[in-house]
Amino acid sequence: MKITAAEIYKSIEAIRRESPVVHNITNYVVMNSTANALLAIGASPVMAHAEEEVEEMVNIASALVINIGTLSEHWINSMFRAARQARKKGIPVILDPVGAGATTYRTKTARELINNEPPAIIRGNASEIMALYDDKARTKGVDSAASADAAIEIARRLSETHKCVVCISGATDYIIDKEKIMKIKNGHQLMSRVTGLGCTASALCGAFAAVEKAPFAAAVNAMAVMGIAGEMAAKTAAGPGSLQIHFLDYLYLMSEDDISRLLKVED
Amino acid sequence: MKITAAEIYKSIEAIRRESPVVHNITNYVVMNSTANALLAIGASPVMAHAEEEVEEMVNIASALVINIGTLSEHWINSMFRAARQARKKGIPVILDPVGAGATTYRTKTARELINNEPPAIIRGNASEIMALYDDKARTKGVDSAASADAAIEIARRLSETHKCVVCISGATDYIIDKEKIMKIKNGHQLMSRVTGLGCTASALCGAFAAVEKAPFAAAVNAMAVMGIAGEMAAKTAAGPGSLQIHFLDYLYLMSEDDISRLLKVED
Amino acid sequence: MKITAAEIYKSIEAIRRESPVVHNITNYVVMNSTANALLAIGASPVMAHAEEEVEEMVNIASALVINIGTLSEHWINSMFRAARQARKKGIPVILDPVGAGATTYRTKTARELINNEPPAIIRGNASEIMALYDDKARTKGVDSAASADAAIEIARRLSETHKCVVCISGATDYIIDKEKIMKIKNGHQLMSRVTGLGCTASALCGAFAAVEKAPFAAAVNAMAVMGIAGEMAAKTAAGPGSLQIHFLDYLYLMSEDDISRLLKVED
Repeated sequence: MKITAAEIYKSIEAIRRESPVVHNITNYVVMNSTANALLAIGASPVMAHAEEEVEEMVNIASALVINIGTLSEHWINSMFRAARQARKKGIPVILDPVGAGATTYRTKTARELINNEPPAIIRGNASEIMALYDDKARTKGVDSAASADAAIEIARRLSETHKCVVCISGATDYIIDKEKIMKIKNGHQLMSRVTGLGCTASALCGAFAAVEKAPFAAAVNAMAVMGIAGEMAAKTAAGPGSLQIHFLDYLYLMSEDDISRLLKVED
Repeated sequence: MKITAAEIYKSIEAIRRESPVVHNITNYVVMNSTANALLAIGASPVMAHAEEEVEEMVNIASALVINIGTLSEHWINSMFRAARQARKKGIPVILDPVGAGATTYRTKTARELINNEPPAIIRGNASEIMALYDDKARTKGVDSAASADAAIEIARRLSETHKCVVCISGATDYIIDKEKIMKIKNGHQLMSRVTGLGCTASALCGAFAAVEKAPFAAAVNAMAVMGIAGEMAAKTAAGPGSLQIHFLDYLYLMSEDDISRLLKVED
Repeated sequence: MKITAAEIYKSIEAIRRESPVVHNITNYVVMNSTANALLAIGASPVMAHAEEEVEEMVNIASALVINIGTLSEHWINSMFRAARQARKKGIPVILDPVGAGATTYRTKTARELINNEPPAIIRGNASEIMALYDDKARTKGVDSAASADAAIEIARRLSETHKCVVCISGATDYIIDKEKIMKIKNGHQLMSRVTGLGCTASALCGAFAAVEKAPFAAAVNAMAVMGIAGEMAAKTAAGPGSLQIHFLDYLYLMSEDDISRLLKVED
C-alpha cells in the first residue's frame, strides 16, 4: 500500500467540500478542542450524549466517535446505543479508549464496547491498546507510553479478532490491521504537553472515515494530518499554549504542498 | 428605531462598570469559551446546573442564559426551574435552542421551554428558529443554515405569540419582534469555523440585556458587538485557532471608535 | 520561613522530572484549561469523576484536587469517596470551594468536605474562604472579592481547626496556617478577565504538593508561579484571549532567572 500526499489532500478536500457531520460522545475535557479541530479541518461536529437522542443524532451523522475519557453510567448506555445504531446504519465508529488500563471501569467499558459493537478504528496510546487485550498492561495515568513495539502484537490480534483497524499513537504512529502496518513519523514532542490531542486524532479519524471508505486509509490520513499540523505548529509556537492555537490554524490552512514537503510515512 | 455606535458603546460601558452576573445553564462544549467571552466584555459569568441550587443562583444574577446544546434529563429540569425563577424575579431569560430540529428531544425541549417560560430573547440559526415552529424544518446537524429569509416569517410569529425578541444569526443577523426588524451585516465567514460563537452571541445577549431594559436593543447591541469583534479578529488571525483568541481580545479592547468605524446595521 | 527563587525552581524541576499524576474532580468550565496548565508545568493530569472509578484513580495519583465549581449529586459522592481514599493513601488533597457563599448547596458541600475529609490546602478568593466559616459572608457570584484582610482571621481559624493551609487569592495572595502568613504580590489585573485561573491555581497547588511534602511551601510555590506566569503573559498579551495562551507558554518556559527577577514575596 502506498500513501501519497495527493491521496491525503484529496481526502481533506472531500471533508472541506462535504462538511460531513461527525457525532462525538466524548469527554468533558476535550469537547471544545475536539469540536474546534473538526471545524478547522472542515467537518461539522455535533455532540450529544443523552440516551433520548443519540440514535437520532447518529442518523444525521457520517461517522461516530466514542471517547471514554470521563465516563459515567448514563454515558456508557448512550455509547452502546449510539454504536449499535451506527453499525446498523453503516457509518464508521471510532473508539478512543482513554485511560484503559488505569481503572477497571475504563478497561471493562472499552472491552465491552469492542466485543459488542466492534468499531472500524480504535486509536489509543500503547498502554491503552495493550489494556484492551492484556490484564498485565497497566497505565500510569492517561498519558502513559508503554513500549509501542510491545503493543503492536496486541493491536494485530485485536484487529484480527474484531476486524478493525488499530492505531497506536506516540512518537511514531502505527496503523495496523491483520495484514499490514504503516508508520507515521510526523508530529512533535511538544504536542504531548497539550491536553486532548490524542482525542483530536480520534475525532479526525472520524472526519476522514466519513469521506474515505477504507478505515485503514482513513486512519493513516488522519494521523498524517495530525502530525503535520503539529509539526508546523511547533515550529512557530513559543510553548504548549500557542501550539494548540497554531495547530488549529494549520488544520485549516494545510495545503497539498505542506503535506508533500513534510509527510514521513513508512510501511 | 435608530441604532448608533454611541448607544452600543454606552451599553458596553455599563457592562464594564456594573459587571452584571450572568447565570448560564449551557452546554459542555462552550462553557469555557462562553465564560471567557463574558469576562472579556466585562460581565461576571456563573455556571450552575444542579436543581439544588439553580433558583438561588438566579437570585444573584441579572440575566439567565439557557442553552440546550448538550441536554440530559436533570439539566432540563434545572432549565425549567431556573427560567421560572428568573421570570418571577423579573430578570431577562435568553434561550439558545442549539440543534433544535436535529433531534426530537431538542426540538421538544426548546418548544416546551418557550411555551411554559417564554424568554425575552431567542437566538439561533435559521434552521433552529424554524424548528421551533415548523415540523417540516430539519437541521443538518447543528450548524445548518436554512434560508434566513424563510425563517423571518417564523420568527415574527414566534415573537408575536410569545412576546419575545427573536434573533436569527448568520451571514446577516436579523433581530425581529412583531413590529420591527433590524439587520446586522457585521461578522466574518471564518467565525463559522470556531465552535460556540453562536452560543457566545446568546451569552452576550444576556450581558447586554442585564444592563439594557429593552430586549430588542440588547439583542441588537450584542449581535453588533459579536460581528465587529469577529471582523477585527479575522483581520489579524491566521486561521480559526487564532481568530478565537483575537476575538476575546477585541471584546475586551473594543472602543466606541471601533464600533463607529465598522458598524453595518440596516432596518 | 524564607522562600527563594531557587527553592521554587527546584520544585518546578521536580514536577518536570517526575511528571506526577494529579487527579482532578473539577468543574466543566475549566477542565480543559486546568489540564493544559498541569501539562504545561510538567505534571500528568487525569480527570475522573465516576463513583465506580475515583478510588482506583486516586491510587495511581500523587495529589487530588477537588473543585466544586459545577456541582451535582453524583459528583459530590465521588468527591467524598476520592478524598477519603486520598487521605487513607496519604496523598495531599486540595480543595477549591468555588462559589461557596453564593448558594447554600455549595457552602454546605464545601463545609462538609472540610469537616469530614480535611484537605491539606484550601484555596479560594476572600468571600469563598469567609463563607467556609461565617454565614454572614455572602458572595456576589463566583468572582467576588470581599476584603482579603477580613478573610485572614477566618483563614487562620480554619487552619487551626482543620490543620490545613489556607490560601486566599486576590491582588495579593495570602498563604496562611495557624502560626504563619506569607504574602505574594505577583500577578496582574488582567488575569481576572480569564475564566478558571483561580481553578488553575488550585490545580498547581496539587502539582507542587505532589513533589513537596510541606503543604505550606507547596501553596507558596504554586501561587508564586501562577503570579509570575501571569505577569509575564500580561506583558505580551493584547487582551484576555492572548493572556490565557501566553500564560500556558510561560508555565512551560519559566526559568529560575524569571522567578528571581519577578518574585515578590513578603512574610
